[in-house]
Amino acid sequence: MTATLHVVGVGPGDPELMTLKAARLIGSAPVIAFFSKHGRTGHARRVSAGHIAPGTPELHFEYPFTTEIEVQDPRYLADMGVFYEHCASRLETALATGQDVILLCEGDPFFYGSAMYLYDRLRSTWHTEITPGVTGMSGCWSRAGTPMTHGDDVLSVLPGTLDEDQLVTRLRASDAVVIMKLGRNLAKIRRALDRAGLIDRAFYVERGTMADEIIQPFADLDRDRVPYFAIVLVPGRQGAR
Amino acid sequence: MTATLHVVGVGPGDPELMTLKAARLIGSAPVIAFFSKHGRTGHARRVSAGHIAPGTPELHFEYPFTTEIEVQDPRYLADMGVFYEHCASRLETALATGQDVILLCEGDPFFYGSAMYLYDRLRSTWHTEITPGVTGMSGCWSRAGTPMTHGDDVLSVLPGTLDEDQLVTRLRASDAVVIMKLGRNLAKIRRALDRAGLIDRAFYVERGTMADEIIQPFADLDRDRVPYFAIVLVPGRQGAR
Repeated sequence: MTATLHVVGVGPGDPELMTLKAARLIGSAPVIAFFSKHGRTGHARRVSAGHIAPGTPELHFEYPFTTEIEVQDPRYLADMGVFYEHCASRLETALATGQDVILLCEGDPFFYGSAMYLYDRLRSTWHTEITPGVTGMSGCWSRAGTPMTHGDDVLSVLPGTLDEDQLVTRLRASDAVVIMKLGRNLAKIRRALDRAGLIDRAFYVERGTMADEIIQPFADLDRDRVPYFAIVLVPGRQGAR
Repeated sequence: MTATLHVVGVGPGDPELMTLKAARLIGSAPVIAFFSKHGRTGHARRVSAGHIAPGTPELHFEYPFTTEIEVQDPRYLADMGVFYEHCASRLETALATGQDVILLCEGDPFFYGSAMYLYDRLRSTWHTEITPGVTGMSGCWSRAGTPMTHGDDVLSVLPGTLDEDQLVTRLRASDAVVIMKLGRNLAKIRRALDRAGLIDRAFYVERGTMADEIIQPFADLDRDRVPYFAIVLVPGRQGAR
């Protein structure tokens, strides 16, 4: 088979932060594919809209859950496995006709992207090519105006799902930190930042680079619930001046 | 003053991995500025060449060193401080005429970028805007075909300048790891990967996304010296399938 599965990062949200290569691949796509929450348009699809030629066939992969389920929940692994198998099978049906498929992915595909689960299933059978994108975290720290890593800083990217003691240990052992996957983990993350003495250095960013972005010092955040995809940034040491 | 200092990431090396916004800003730049090694064209300048309008005024900032000096060396801090002051002053001279300046930066500006040292000096006086870019590490892991972080993986980005024990401790405490700044640190990094039991999971990438890139399993690397900007990738756990 000569068809290629292109896994294409579309960047952090501002459509102008897509790469030239992503725009070219999307604009000439024989078939596009994308994920979305159940009943939604899909973030990657929305970011790409200006480049998709009218009439391009679309494969829309809707996540089976309407609410956030913990990765630790046994249902998560089982249901997501079935879902990803189904998506991979739909991609193979399109590729088998000889057409390249452009699988859209928020941010950068190999950095916490769902598209990896399809790539992992298809890479041994089909020709694949990954087009990297600007990560959500790069979009967020650029908009926050917070240089993150100077010189010999260590950067840790931590999922907010870690337990509180783990978060504290890792916060203390790092120079710069990004905490992803806030959602219901917010209160725990707040306690961990406090215990590590980092509340006053941390920033909260929601929908960074998008029209309705929210950026504020973490200490000023007076909400109890925030979106799953919001992030916390702790800039590193300020290094050589 | 209404002039803006734009700090613009140009991505990992392949000119097509520049963002649409970077290409637009560079193409309409009143003045461009960029760093290079002493006596060289400059990597960011070369990546951007296809977008720079003929006759655009250029500020070329050549690093004062012709060889690699350790950050720990006292000469480094002193000489680099003088150098950055000089660069900032040249930027201010241009901005003071009312013209926007586009400061080019390899990869993503706030992720180990030299441009941060100029941004830090000018941000309180001038209007600034950061355009994020695809990082070198995203370019490398995309080309290597190695999904890095699934699910709840922790990613650590480590400078190769850390001492061996620090590297081992951090390698053992992470799921996915990127080691930057190889150069003369290679032998130490090899020992640390070996002690952490990760040699066989690691990849070596040099000039990722560029025409002369080198990608190979770290275990197959039989050289004693590699470039400073080469990186090591250790992909994380493979997560939910």
